[in-house]
Amino acid sequence: MSLDPYQLRKDFPILSETMPNGKPLVYLDNGATSQKPLSVIQATNDYYAKENANIHRGVYYLSQHATELFERTRIKTSHFFQAQCAKAIIFTRGTTDAINLVAQTYGRVNVSEGDEIVLSVQEHHSNLVPWQMLAREKRAFLKFIPILPDTTYDLSKLSEIITKRTKIVAISQMSNVTGTVHDLRKIIDRARQVGAKVLVDGAQAACHMPIHLVDLDVDFYAFSAHKMLGPTGVGVLFGKEEILEAMPPWLGGGDMIESVELESSTYAALPAKLEAGTPNIAGVIGFSHALDYLQKVGMQNIKNHERMLTEYALERFQKIGGLTLYGTEDLDKRGGVISFTLDGIHPHDVGSILDEEGVAIRVGHHCCQPLMKHFQIPGTCRASFYFYNTKEDIDVLIKSIEKVKSIFGRVVRK
Amino acid sequence: MSLDPYQLRKDFPILSETMPNGKPLVYLDNGATSQKPLSVIQATNDYYAKENANIHRGVYYLSQHATELFERTRIKTSHFFQAQCAKAIIFTRGTTDAINLVAQTYGRVNVSEGDEIVLSVQEHHSNLVPWQMLAREKRAFLKFIPILPDTTYDLSKLSEIITKRTKIVAISQMSNVTGTVHDLRKIIDRARQVGAKVLVDGAQAACHMPIHLVDLDVDFYAFSAHKMLGPTGVGVLFGKEEILEAMPPWLGGGDMIESVELESSTYAALPAKLEAGTPNIAGVIGFSHALDYLQKVGMQNIKNHERMLTEYALERFQKIGGLTLYGTEDLDKRGGVISFTLDGIHPHDVGSILDEEGVAIRVGHHCCQPLMKHFQIPGTCRASFYFYNTKEDIDVLIKSIEKVKSIFGRVVRK
Repeated sequence: MSLDPYQLRKDFPILSETMPNGKPLVYLDNGATSQKPLSVIQATNDYYAKENANIHRGVYYLSQHATELFERTRIKTSHFFQAQCAKAIIFTRGTTDAINLVAQTYGRVNVSEGDEIVLSVQEHHSNLVPWQMLAREKRAFLKFIPILPDTTYDLSKLSEIITKRTKIVAISQMSNVTGTVHDLRKIIDRARQVGAKVLVDGAQAACHMPIHLVDLDVDFYAFSAHKMLGPTGVGVLFGKEEILEAMPPWLGGGDMIESVELESSTYAALPAKLEAGTPNIAGVIGFSHALDYLQKVGMQNIKNHERMLTEYALERFQKIGGLTLYGTEDLDKRGGVISFTLDGIHPHDVGSILDEEGVAIRVGHHCCQPLMKHFQIPGTCRASFYFYNTKEDIDVLIKSIEKVKSIFGRVVRK
Repeated sequence: MSLDPYQLRKDFPILSETMPNGKPLVYLDNGATSQKPLSVIQATNDYYAKENANIHRGVYYLSQHATELFERTRIKTSHFFQAQCAKAIIFTRGTTDAINLVAQTYGRVNVSEGDEIVLSVQEHHSNLVPWQMLAREKRAFLKFIPILPDTTYDLSKLSEIITKRTKIVAISQMSNVTGTVHDLRKIIDRARQVGAKVLVDGAQAACHMPIHLVDLDVDFYAFSAHKMLGPTGVGVLFGKEEILEAMPPWLGGGDMIESVELESSTYAALPAKLEAGTPNIAGVIGFSHALDYLQKVGMQNIKNHERMLTEYALERFQKIGGLTLYGTEDLDKRGGVISFTLDGIHPHDVGSILDEEGVAIRVGHHCCQPLMKHFQIPGTCRASFYFYNTKEDIDVLIKSIEKVKSIFGRVVRK
């Protein structure tokens, strides 16, 4: 089975939009956020127009109905990602929020002076800065898994990097810059050997491929709804139940307590313990419809389609002179993200000229300054695909890049 | 000028809904969350259907447009609440999130062993538990401003409660249980005398009356968008600029950094420093339309209308036998929240029977267990009004309460 992007695009109203200059939108910034199908938009609409109430605390119909919609999304999420159980799913504001939650609860309790936290050199700032903050507070050390020239993790010295002093390994499954998809097996196995916990930043992976959390056997897995058709302001932290149980709460407030006296409180059971305050109810319910949509399309179909697009794009990019590509050429080890630079042309100029053609790509450091330093460049241009992208989108991208080159060629000639 | 609730109700689709049992909805749980006008629903819809992109990092039209919509909301919020400046407005997930942010950044840095944090005995758990957690971590002490029989703060021993050891005074402006609106002047002045910082939990106040943050002269003010016509998952922390500047960041991640090396990072300027990761973009933009709507209706008109409703409700409630009201009768000191109990009938039973009549009220401890203990009751029934409520809503409420009494009277007689 495969998917028909031309048919699916009809479900995404924004993909038929034209930009103010009259050019049709060619949306290739899916690494930053995905577009939303009508079913998600309509669900949010319906929620506010017909179903809105605060959850968990009401005996009246609307509140109970909203609670049911909210909690059903938790169950659906656990099934979609093959998690142990629904209470292992904690709704957060996003991936960043989820990683900080782990750093500031599990991390604060379990990392001590002299301990080590292992990351990679290509982490997004959201999976780097929280650990820097924790390491500074605890006088712990950060260690980094390097990358090979093909941008996959260099595991040759893994046993020297992950040691008995390692408490947490926090690592991304797919790079938001190069699209490299990492095989995490050896890293997870090594962490198990030394008793370290593993957090996987799945912000870029969860939206593009089937994820089986029980099989992956990680301790924590974090991702965002807005990169997978869902509303903004919703993220998910999966955690193994026994680890979440043992963690202290992060935020204090309503819903996360069992009983409260003036001087002290007893905390509620999972998942409530880690979800203080009124959550993003409409957002979570919208995410439920995003999962339904993805289920219908099929995550394996999405992966296959993006592989086909990436293969097509790489072939065409490789024919452009004066263009450097970042990341592996091995399609088994990468997803639909193409990072490139044009000789002598600043990525911002490329982005601006592409914008004039209606082509939306991201340019800059992509919240990965250490990786940019590794590449010895200030930034890249990044086109990132989703299942609703087509070969024609890539054709417009390529044609627009040729236009950039011709404009800058003219400038140089003057 | 006054407002016409019958006209305004037409803007709120849910207020014309009937419940599954055919009864028209009488929504009186505004203390938990407000309903949303069409303009907010439509703005969210339009954002996802026509404008969606990630913000702050894109050079293409959609991203720049979304950034502009997001940042204009910050400016609008600062004007609406008469704040010092736009960068004093930090977008959070909600009030709970905002208070925890202050406890875990300002609090962690500035509260030491033996210091004191002053709250009141009627705080919502969201303005109690974060301070309990901080006090335990720092071996600091919590002290509580008591309440008088009329549920206003008892300020007779203020100089003994707020002392040189007090670092933070965290106090609500309006009770979510009794609707009591507190005059904070003396508390703020006393805090100034001893050099303590003041955080006001404005979750219940910001939505119901004009707030002038510069005049109020508080250091922090926290509230939620969803209680004032806005989407779920959005809150605001106002902080005085110089205090926010001096605070460490809370969450590490994208957007909150200036430059990142593997081992350390330089943090960005306000407000970015305190807003890590992709925010609830659609939610914040929706909130902008909520503020527009409230501006059009007028906060003073809202306050006046709710005063009228409260006066009407109190008059009618006082005629019901076997009913206890909580909170002051002085309309100058209260907002549109009526907490009551019926002799011998559990609040949950009241709530359930009211639900059968289409009447949505909240029952229980309202996340205020210490206040319930003060009243020596397990919970109350709470009807809470907003500007779209009418005298007819209160008539249905009263009639339904009479029905509860008659049902339970019959049960007792059997």
